[in-house]
Amino acid sequence: MPHVRLTRHFHFSASHRLHAPALSAEENRRVFGKCNNPHGHGHNYVLGVTVEGEVNLVTGQVVHPGELEAVVRAAVLDDYSYKYLDQDLADFATMTATAENMASNVRDRLLAAWPAGFPALAQVRIQETKRNVIDLPVIEETV
Amino acid sequence: MPHVRLTRHFHFSASHRLHAPALSAEENRRVFGKCNNPHGHGHNYVLGVTVEGEVNLVTGQVVHPGELEAVVRAAVLDDYSYKYLDQDLADFATMTATAENMASNVRDRLLAAWPAGFPALAQVRIQETKRNVIDLPVIEETV
Amino acid sequence: MPHVRLTRHFHFSASHRLHAPALSAEENRRVFGKCNNPHGHGHNYVLGVTVEGEVNLVTGQVVHPGELEAVVRAAVLDDYSYKYLDQDLADFATMTATAENMASNVRDRLLAAWPAGFPALAQVRIQETKRNVIDLPVIEETV
Amino acid sequence: MPHVRLTRHFHFSASHRLHAPALSAEENRRVFGKCNNPHGHGHNYVLGVTVEGEVNLVTGQVVHPGELEAVVRAAVLDDYSYKYLDQDLADFATMTATAENMASNVRDRLLAAWPAGFPALAQVRIQETKRNVIDLPVIEETV
Amino acid sequence: MPHVRLTRHFHFSASHRLHAPALSAEENRRVFGKCNNPHGHGHNYVLGVTVEGEVNLVTGQVVHPGELEAVVRAAVLDDYSYKYLDQDLADFATMTATAENMASNVRDRLLAAWPAGFPALAQVRIQETKRNVIDLPVIEETV
Amino acid sequence: MPHVRLTRHFHFSASHRLHAPALSAEENRRVFGKCNNPHGHGHNYVLGVTVEGEVNLVTGQVVHPGELEAVVRAAVLDDYSYKYLDQDLADFATMTATAENMASNVRDRLLAAWPAGFPALAQVRIQETKRNVIDLPVIEETV
Repeated sequence: MPHVRLTRHFHFSASHRLHAPALSAEENRRVFGKCNNPHGHGHNYVLGVTVEGEVNLVTGQVVHPGELEAVVRAAVLDDYSYKYLDQDLADFATMTATAENMASNVRDRLLAAWPAGFPALAQVRIQETKRNVIDLPVIEETV
Repeated sequence: MPHVRLTRHFHFSASHRLHAPALSAEENRRVFGKCNNPHGHGHNYVLGVTVEGEVNLVTGQVVHPGELEAVVRAAVLDDYSYKYLDQDLADFATMTATAENMASNVRDRLLAAWPAGFPALAQVRIQETKRNVIDLPVIEETV
Repeated sequence: MPHVRLTRHFHFSASHRLHAPALSAEENRRVFGKCNNPHGHGHNYVLGVTVEGEVNLVTGQVVHPGELEAVVRAAVLDDYSYKYLDQDLADFATMTATAENMASNVRDRLLAAWPAGFPALAQVRIQETKRNVIDLPVIEETV
Repeated sequence: MPHVRLTRHFHFSASHRLHAPALSAEENRRVFGKCNNPHGHGHNYVLGVTVEGEVNLVTGQVVHPGELEAVVRAAVLDDYSYKYLDQDLADFATMTATAENMASNVRDRLLAAWPAGFPALAQVRIQETKRNVIDLPVIEETV
Repeated sequence: MPHVRLTRHFHFSASHRLHAPALSAEENRRVFGKCNNPHGHGHNYVLGVTVEGEVNLVTGQVVHPGELEAVVRAAVLDDYSYKYLDQDLADFATMTATAENMASNVRDRLLAAWPAGFPALAQVRIQETKRNVIDLPVIEETV
Repeated sequence: MPHVRLTRHFHFSASHRLHAPALSAEENRRVFGKCNNPHGHGHNYVLGVTVEGEVNLVTGQVVHPGELEAVVRAAVLDDYSYKYLDQDLADFATMTATAENMASNVRDRLLAAWPAGFPALAQVRIQETKRNVIDLPVIEETV
């Protein structure tokens, strides 16, 4: 059976503030510019979750889309959606919620909740705006 | 010369919190749901500004795009961009930053800054997400 | 308070077959081409529902988005979604499910279910593909 | 039968140079900036053609899409597509190919070729980029 | 000369019904939900065909786009377009037309028709909706 | 720290003419069709620049977006934007400005200007239209 990659996209709205705890106020302002504004700003994020594996001979699917959606919803979206990420989520207490850090946090959350028998998690994508996209390939041995 | 409408779209990222000052905490929660979360959330907004008028015989344009952009930038975007609207802008001290109220605030800001000789401001559009769009036609006599 | 138009977009997948009951098989083939293929074909439709009215002074909204969504879901999407429209819906027994006829059927379904106190239904849009869009303005006196 | 508006979108690639014959070289540079560069530049244009009329009781359509497409193709696209508009088309010999002038030229070309029995041409849209859109409503008495 | 990947996208409308022949009616309903509705539903599919190879020194192209289009049209689109895939195509008699199975069927059809001298077929993508995308990398030794 | 790929997209408008210096006028017409029209045509290009590397522990970023933008702007966009590429740029004097050749020229320009300490340039994408996309992976040893 063919080996395919399925990517499913999820939309959520949230806000963040780029502010590195290890930097001074002035350095933060210089590094992050207006993205360091004190009360944050937000985006319509698109989260792309890619799985990779064999197509099931009976169902013709690499994964049941409803089951994948349930995992992503419980592990990520229920916490992220309509939140001020840096303020509302403990995960971002010691690192700022850049798209890069969000991608790595989403990967950790998904791997911790990944059901046995699921195809491998292959990549996490965070699209902040149409102009700015982060792809985090998931290294195989961690799966 | 033909009479046309030109719409120019501007993108900005901001956050807001739907919270009506006149309602109790419980009523706010019921009316706005997750959009009432205490620290706000954000969007990649698209602002559409529509002008309407005669095409200039010499330039073939209804308005100089650079001049229109300068007006919108100074009157709206410089204040809105990368801000937590309800917290950072005095305009939203007594009304919450719904897309409806944002459209009406943008119209007021544009009309106050509108240069003499510009074609009429015909409409303001606030697109919060691809699913949710507010159009505010500008009533002619106010122009 | 300002008078605005809010448009909310809904996505659904369905199939249809363009086949006019009043025409012969040959005429149907000539008028509709491949869209007359015997077993139908489908689209990712986008339904745009536009309401028009005063912004509520307390909530800053022209309509509660969750209430509007509930009306559209119950009156239209629960029946349309994942269906072969011409076959599965009695509404299309005597007229074929062109985008034009779908728009007019959606308008009838919405008007029949429209709650008292809602702002006026101003327009129904059916986008069949990005290339093909039908707008049906709702004549005021019918509201 | 309901009265609807159908908009059909057409894509074409072309180039233009904004340069007003009545202005000096220096004035052209000041008014149009980089859009006045001597050898032109180009866009992926989207042309939107809107017709308005009654839905045909038999076919369920306001216009036969293939017939509309044939008119637009012969009257506009065959000439515009893959061309340097200001250089290749006599229509732009005395006026520069701004989106505004293109919209008005498209309207003239369509009205001259408009078949008897077609629904009214209601609007011509030229989208130069996603940020810049011209709408030219067609005044009824000219139809 | 540089080694590049060219992806060309093709749009087509079709309908399908997710129904696994090896499962009972009840199991099909449980696995596929509304996608198992008896008369099918449809999508505006986007097919992405990726080729990979050296850029031709003379033409500056990795493949002649018209020739690639002719191959895809004859091998895939002429059969897929405006069809109810599960009903109209023998290929889906024993497997249901999921996006995964469609991708593998498209790959087989393309490889069987692939002209000598063409760059390698590198990947087939089926985008069912913006939310759901299947990528099928073509294993090199099969090319 | 995680290893990520960041892609940043840049929009520019330009025109080109597909015309291979090594071919006769007749051969050029046969190979490139309307894209060989004598005065060129244009596109709204999207340039995607992908970098790959470790996320900085302090800033949470793989690269400072403003610094990346400055490099791309100075090395590519200032020359490409609003230009007739084949006519205005010496780079295309001996090769025609196909998307393939543009991608390879952009890679050469970026590598020549790439700042020390920047993450590796991983890929250059030229999207000519939504239908036509070129990806040029940057081979590691050249970085």
